[in-house]
Amino acid sequence: MKQEIPYKIYLEEQEMPKQWYNVRADMKKKPSPLLNPATSKPITLKELSGIFCEELARQELDDSTPYLDIPDEIRDFYRMYRPSPLVRAYCLEKKLDTPAHIYYKFEGNNTSGSHKLNSAIAQAYYAKKQGLKGVTTETGAGQWGTALSMACSYFGLDCQVYMVKCSYEQKPFRREVMRTYGAKVTPSPSMNTEVGRKINAEFPGTTGSLGCAISEAVEAAMTQEGYRYVLGSVLAQVLLHQSVIGLETKAALEKYGIKADMIIGCAGGGSNLGGLISPFAGEMLRGEADYEIVAVEPASCPSLTRGVYAYDFCDTGKVCPLSKMYTLGSSFIPSANHAGGLRYHGMSATVSELYDQELLTARSVEQTEVFKAAQIFARVEGILPAPESSHAIKVAIDEAVKCKETGEAKNIVFGLTGTGYFDMVAYQKYNDGEMRDYIPSDEELKAAFAKIPKIKE
Amino acid sequence: MKQEIPYKIYLEEQEMPKQWYNVRADMKKKPSPLLNPATSKPITLKELSGIFCEELARQELDDSTPYLDIPDEIRDFYRMYRPSPLVRAYCLEKKLDTPAHIYYKFEGNNTSGSHKLNSAIAQAYYAKKQGLKGVTTETGAGQWGTALSMACSYFGLDCQVYMVKCSYEQKPFRREVMRTYGAKVTPSPSMNTEVGRKINAEFPGTTGSLGCAISEAVEAAMTQEGYRYVLGSVLAQVLLHQSVIGLETKAALEKYGIKADMIIGCAGGGSNLGGLISPFAGEMLRGEADYEIVAVEPASCPSLTRGVYAYDFCDTGKVCPLSKMYTLGSSFIPSANHAGGLRYHGMSATVSELYDQELLTARSVEQTEVFKAAQIFARVEGILPAPESSHAIKVAIDEAVKCKETGEAKNIVFGLTGTGYFDMVAYQKYNDGEMRDYIPSDEELKAAFAKIPKIKE
Repeated sequence: MKQEIPYKIYLEEQEMPKQWYNVRADMKKKPSPLLNPATSKPITLKELSGIFCEELARQELDDSTPYLDIPDEIRDFYRMYRPSPLVRAYCLEKKLDTPAHIYYKFEGNNTSGSHKLNSAIAQAYYAKKQGLKGVTTETGAGQWGTALSMACSYFGLDCQVYMVKCSYEQKPFRREVMRTYGAKVTPSPSMNTEVGRKINAEFPGTTGSLGCAISEAVEAAMTQEGYRYVLGSVLAQVLLHQSVIGLETKAALEKYGIKADMIIGCAGGGSNLGGLISPFAGEMLRGEADYEIVAVEPASCPSLTRGVYAYDFCDTGKVCPLSKMYTLGSSFIPSANHAGGLRYHGMSATVSELYDQELLTARSVEQTEVFKAAQIFARVEGILPAPESSHAIKVAIDEAVKCKETGEAKNIVFGLTGTGYFDMVAYQKYNDGEMRDYIPSDEELKAAFAKIPKIKE
Repeated sequence: MKQEIPYKIYLEEQEMPKQWYNVRADMKKKPSPLLNPATSKPITLKELSGIFCEELARQELDDSTPYLDIPDEIRDFYRMYRPSPLVRAYCLEKKLDTPAHIYYKFEGNNTSGSHKLNSAIAQAYYAKKQGLKGVTTETGAGQWGTALSMACSYFGLDCQVYMVKCSYEQKPFRREVMRTYGAKVTPSPSMNTEVGRKINAEFPGTTGSLGCAISEAVEAAMTQEGYRYVLGSVLAQVLLHQSVIGLETKAALEKYGIKADMIIGCAGGGSNLGGLISPFAGEMLRGEADYEIVAVEPASCPSLTRGVYAYDFCDTGKVCPLSKMYTLGSSFIPSANHAGGLRYHGMSATVSELYDQELLTARSVEQTEVFKAAQIFARVEGILPAPESSHAIKVAIDEAVKCKETGEAKNIVFGLTGTGYFDMVAYQKYNDGEMRDYIPSDEELKAAFAKIPKIKE
């Protein structure tokens, strides 16, 4: 195998982005503002600063500044694992016998195992800078909690993680990674918070939900002096921090004169997808280039492909600001059979608006075919992918196979957000032939849609 | 933090070694030859080719050729994850407030999670080239089995792994990674082999041992047409393949004009240590340079620091060739309380001979202090290290602290062989304060030494 383009395109450390890119600045029609759940009016900086650190609240509300400097302290941390490689999938191309050129931006080369660390370290930094004692958060599968515990450990911040009880019990290893990094991990619902005690009393023996864990984490932040709540996806500030993925991808492609035809990312809350596509979407918004951008979501939680575009609650407890987004309704919970992650009921407001403006398309895929794609990829590319990331792999493979039929040598770029080392229960199900697909019925969705609040813009 | 040397020194792909280095070629006194267990005479190429593929048997016996070309097919695979980074541990240095400069060669950036892949892919390649159908092996903790299953999957070889039954049950995730790569994983002792059936009959309910799994894997190779047995450590061929670690380390140091003062590696069977130090030891043997080389082993399995230098069996079943090595006796089994890996009773013949010639020193460390070092490292360097690798971290930290006392700005280089994602049970024990140390008594060792065969050279 001879090639001019190396297997892994590594940028030099000095080529690592010095600024994050805020795609909202280039959008003529901006994402709709967050609303205060008490008043249904756009939330103010002061109000938002009660939940988030001030600088993060400022970033959340700033939809006009295109570039923000990445503080040196964050860049120093990024240097531990960034620039991350853009890998040319030569072996996958060979396996598929496709004329397409496949590239993936690999964000799993850090101990948290995913791209979540890019925003975790930023959020921890601003919390530290504000003089806070610590932060609270929730975690489901544990990628975000792991990333945040690493970030807090680095800056000497207390880190309190409310972990959905069933994950806490079923994923003890994720929990131990967090504890190794000094985080306090509490199964949710707990007896630490009022909302937790209430839910425990109402539903004895409940194994918890993400919505409940969010409510507990928010309450814990509000009731402890010197604490704020942090969140790993959905928010505009998270997309801002995650733009480092797209900026590096773009720089790496440009280094070798490659023009992407298609950019594919998995989409749960939108943190990875938004980060990956931001600079490319920016070019499209400015009329400088054109790309085919595809968001891939699970058929079991299809917010873009089957949801509605409306203001909705971000959490089940309805304590967080309301966001206009593609949503299945905050009462929607994907089947427990769904092992592939990306379980959030809504989608980042920015990604939602870009989707509404038709800058990207969306596809939903079923989990057995996602794991099949994961296995093909793992066997030839030598990386065991996270189930979430494998949604993007599935579509990248589909597109490369299409190229074989048409003879097109498309440049396909996708985001490989993380590794699947802590998802072996799901892989086992697949290996044993016991994995089942699940698609919510129209009736189920209709019932969830009915609970979305009616808010006029 | 400003520096001329980047956090991560990446060689370019074209700087990746084109040849492996065979340190035995530069040794005036060679390691003693392997003996046929039936005759106690040096084993012949023909005899050895019954167990290993021919080319690997040839490599095993060749102690005079200094450099061997790495076949292109293997280099293509290496490109997936090599060159691996040599990382300057700036954050650890800062944490320790030491004038020392600490570097680590990180071999965990591949899905197998360790350096084992460097030899697995070579062994699979030669098996494929010889037209074999598949290979058999044993695995304990699972790093080697994982690496081999990846390598076999790449070349389309059948891979049969005998996994020590207690690990098979306690480490289901490792097992699932192997299955995802298409390997057949059998808990050992099994009913597939004569030796397995015999042991099951003799010790009903036994949870197995590495020695027994080796015997089953060897029997399985001998009794199936087109199969050979492969091994992930101890052998000279493995050290040869692992020399890629040391060669890259040396090239990366030279790229920035850094002269290592001290080179530290963890030592179980010697595959990582031997690979890391080979090119440096070669310089010492040729009188071109001097280094302080330190092998670090667990106090619970101290073959170099407390063993004897003698011919011994490599396996409990006594079917493999005899090797002259530092050994605790093939009947020695470290306490089940020992979670830190590196459980092999003997040491690579080459490392043993270098140690006997005083080219390196050895230290033993206890596991609680190893996990303490692992935690310090994880929190500042952002990598969750394997317990095995953490033995080297422990000594690197000790040495850096000494430098603080003396004011010396030593260049300390150590091998970080892998990640600890599948070792969270051990981390949990440590996090819960339930980890205990274990040092074998003199009487225990004496009893094991007594069973070492008396063979005259």
